[in-house]
Amino acid sequence: MNPANIIEKTTDFGEKYYYTKHKSGLDIYVIPKDFKTSFAMFSTKYGAIDNCFKLAGEENFHEVPDGIAHYLEHKMFENEDGVDTFSRFAKYGANANAFTSGTMTSYLFSCTDHLKENLEILLDYVSKPYFTPENVEKERGIIGQEIRMYEDNPGSAIYYNLLEALYEKHQTRVNVAGTIESIAKITPELLYDCYYTFYNFSNMTLCVSGRADMDMVLDVVDRILPEREQKTIIRNYYDEKPEVYRKRVSAEFEVAKPMFLIGVKDIDIAPDGAERMRKKAVMGILIDMLFGSTSPFALDVYESGLVNGFEAGYDHGRSSSIVYLEGETDDPEAVYTKFLSYLEENRKAGLSREDFDRIKRASYASYLKNFDSTRLAQTFTYMIHDDCDPFDYGDTLKSVTFEETSELFGKLFHEEYYAMSVINPIGK
Amino acid sequence: MNPANIIEKTTDFGEKYYYTKHKSGLDIYVIPKDFKTSFAMFSTKYGAIDNCFKLAGEENFHEVPDGIAHYLEHKMFENEDGVDTFSRFAKYGANANAFTSGTMTSYLFSCTDHLKENLEILLDYVSKPYFTPENVEKERGIIGQEIRMYEDNPGSAIYYNLLEALYEKHQTRVNVAGTIESIAKITPELLYDCYYTFYNFSNMTLCVSGRADMDMVLDVVDRILPEREQKTIIRNYYDEKPEVYRKRVSAEFEVAKPMFLIGVKDIDIAPDGAERMRKKAVMGILIDMLFGSTSPFALDVYESGLVNGFEAGYDHGRSSSIVYLEGETDDPEAVYTKFLSYLEENRKAGLSREDFDRIKRASYASYLKNFDSTRLAQTFTYMIHDDCDPFDYGDTLKSVTFEETSELFGKLFHEEYYAMSVINPIGK
Repeated sequence: MNPANIIEKTTDFGEKYYYTKHKSGLDIYVIPKDFKTSFAMFSTKYGAIDNCFKLAGEENFHEVPDGIAHYLEHKMFENEDGVDTFSRFAKYGANANAFTSGTMTSYLFSCTDHLKENLEILLDYVSKPYFTPENVEKERGIIGQEIRMYEDNPGSAIYYNLLEALYEKHQTRVNVAGTIESIAKITPELLYDCYYTFYNFSNMTLCVSGRADMDMVLDVVDRILPEREQKTIIRNYYDEKPEVYRKRVSAEFEVAKPMFLIGVKDIDIAPDGAERMRKKAVMGILIDMLFGSTSPFALDVYESGLVNGFEAGYDHGRSSSIVYLEGETDDPEAVYTKFLSYLEENRKAGLSREDFDRIKRASYASYLKNFDSTRLAQTFTYMIHDDCDPFDYGDTLKSVTFEETSELFGKLFHEEYYAMSVINPIGK
Repeated sequence: MNPANIIEKTTDFGEKYYYTKHKSGLDIYVIPKDFKTSFAMFSTKYGAIDNCFKLAGEENFHEVPDGIAHYLEHKMFENEDGVDTFSRFAKYGANANAFTSGTMTSYLFSCTDHLKENLEILLDYVSKPYFTPENVEKERGIIGQEIRMYEDNPGSAIYYNLLEALYEKHQTRVNVAGTIESIAKITPELLYDCYYTFYNFSNMTLCVSGRADMDMVLDVVDRILPEREQKTIIRNYYDEKPEVYRKRVSAEFEVAKPMFLIGVKDIDIAPDGAERMRKKAVMGILIDMLFGSTSPFALDVYESGLVNGFEAGYDHGRSSSIVYLEGETDDPEAVYTKFLSYLEENRKAGLSREDFDRIKRASYASYLKNFDSTRLAQTFTYMIHDDCDPFDYGDTLKSVTFEETSELFGKLFHEEYYAMSVINPIGK
């Protein structure tokens, strides 16, 4: 590796990262921080939505069963020598974990010592698939149980019900764990096919924050990663119309009070990473102005006793863009009506410039606080997978104008984009 | 201020703090950290348990209504000029808050900028009591509402019910917010009496972590704190027998599943801070060995489906020492029986040295991780109020032996020290 290929980037608030593209195709980021805790995340741009894909040069798309990315994550902890991955990490005092989302599978650990040894373990186990008919079969029961657990969980049900109401076809509606039916179709061959497609290193990232330096990380990567063909993946996502598929969806669970989750669907997603980053920044400010913890809406529903535990959030990424509002209430339709009238009032009165300035400053402060977190490598991974440079996000935030925030407000909120998912107590 | 009075203390893992006793009597700690976020906490050693006290030289104890420390905290946000304290902080981008516990009242903020200005506001508003018959009366309704909210909250009820089962007389059983009856007796005079007793600066601490230096902090303290008499407070806590007062207590709430909270009462609390710190370290390791997330008990109740969301914890401080186990279960008595038999098995087999070594290392790693937290000043405050030096806790942890852990196991767990608080679904 030629050291000239290592890019150093700094910010005016005293942060620094090193980046290089390894010869294997892997994107490596090292963010040195004087923390006691080091944190590493080895991730593939592969999640529940990637169920239809082909390689450059192939004629036909592969359609694979829902839940296979998550199944694969489970199976990566299986080792040919039978040694338990977690106990390998425990030997060097690391806390290890893994997760699968709609767009990503990540393997991670944190540790206060032995970063090098733990990094070796991380790269080693994730680069060694070991799927046999027996161990794949064994996992089916375990994952089946996990699926049933989620089915019994009102928090999970309300979320997937909303996605299925917002989207008619797009894979964002796919449950990360799949279904009992879909996982029944998973075989070692399919797992290997997905593994060598999506775990080719040019589709992966390694982010390390803490007491790490690029030389050490590169030394480990050079030694541990096997030779592997780099591949160009073409993903097929199903088209969606701008309007929601269904306006309402509800289910009954053993809960004390009804729960609601309102979603706003937005299909205006730019292909360009920098453009998406800008919209993400604007959206963050807008949602906080309208529905943050000190917004008139949040204070009003709280003080009137209409809603308990109100929270709002948003997601604006490569594949989906949604605004969320959730809480507990005795009367979900009253919350929905209030949501409509509140937006109407704001439309008439216009947004407040003073609120905008205050929230924009607070957003920048929140952005800065990311750099105090020992999970910085995780924040980095999320942004990098979305083609954003984490060091540019602050400047983008600073440059957001009141006018573009007002413009987004006008575009985002229209009744045909809203759906509400409700969980009712059984028999009430 | 003579700079020679500033003590600098360092650790072998690269941390540093500065300490001085200000002429006002205030203990000041500054912990410089290269974080974006600075954090300050101004606290008094005064909480719900301090309802019976006198000053050195006084003959009789003052008995004051339950909930007065918390009432006082609320009233500190009242300013003579009518300006809202939170908006003063908001002007300088700080997040401010306050809380009252059994043994402490704390006023705090975090900020990414303008630390000096925010520190000025903090010291200013907490050192200016302003209680009038009108504003004290107005607060009664607000706090009454808060009390009713807690009464309606199963998580709060299960906790206070346990304390009332464990303790017959000791003030640890006092509800922080008091009762509707007790707060009815609170007057401006009583508030001023408590304020000038417990907010005399020799009973207070100021901890600042982040981009802070002692010179700046001392400059602010010198300018803002008013002259105030230093007082020696004598607290009267009621004696307790070692056994629990009641074995079982239960209540009905609108919950989907019964909740349990098992408590282990321990009245063996050393008057010496260093001794308490040592027992705290031993207790932490012991409880994690027996009931931590990877303990046989936790895995067993989880895998058998007996308990959802199992958690264990402990508290070992100046005034009380309790071990907690909590979770949701269909059968609280089955959990209790399992708890008994598990301890019996461990007593027979003895603790595992291997587990001890592993958990001790993990405890030390957790201790180190505190220094990565922007809320470091809060961790400091807790330990200082308990007469522990946070920098000595790591060495204490390292020196804990398997033998003393086994010894504490033998002393702590006996059935006469156990109580269980249960919340049942209504009508089930």
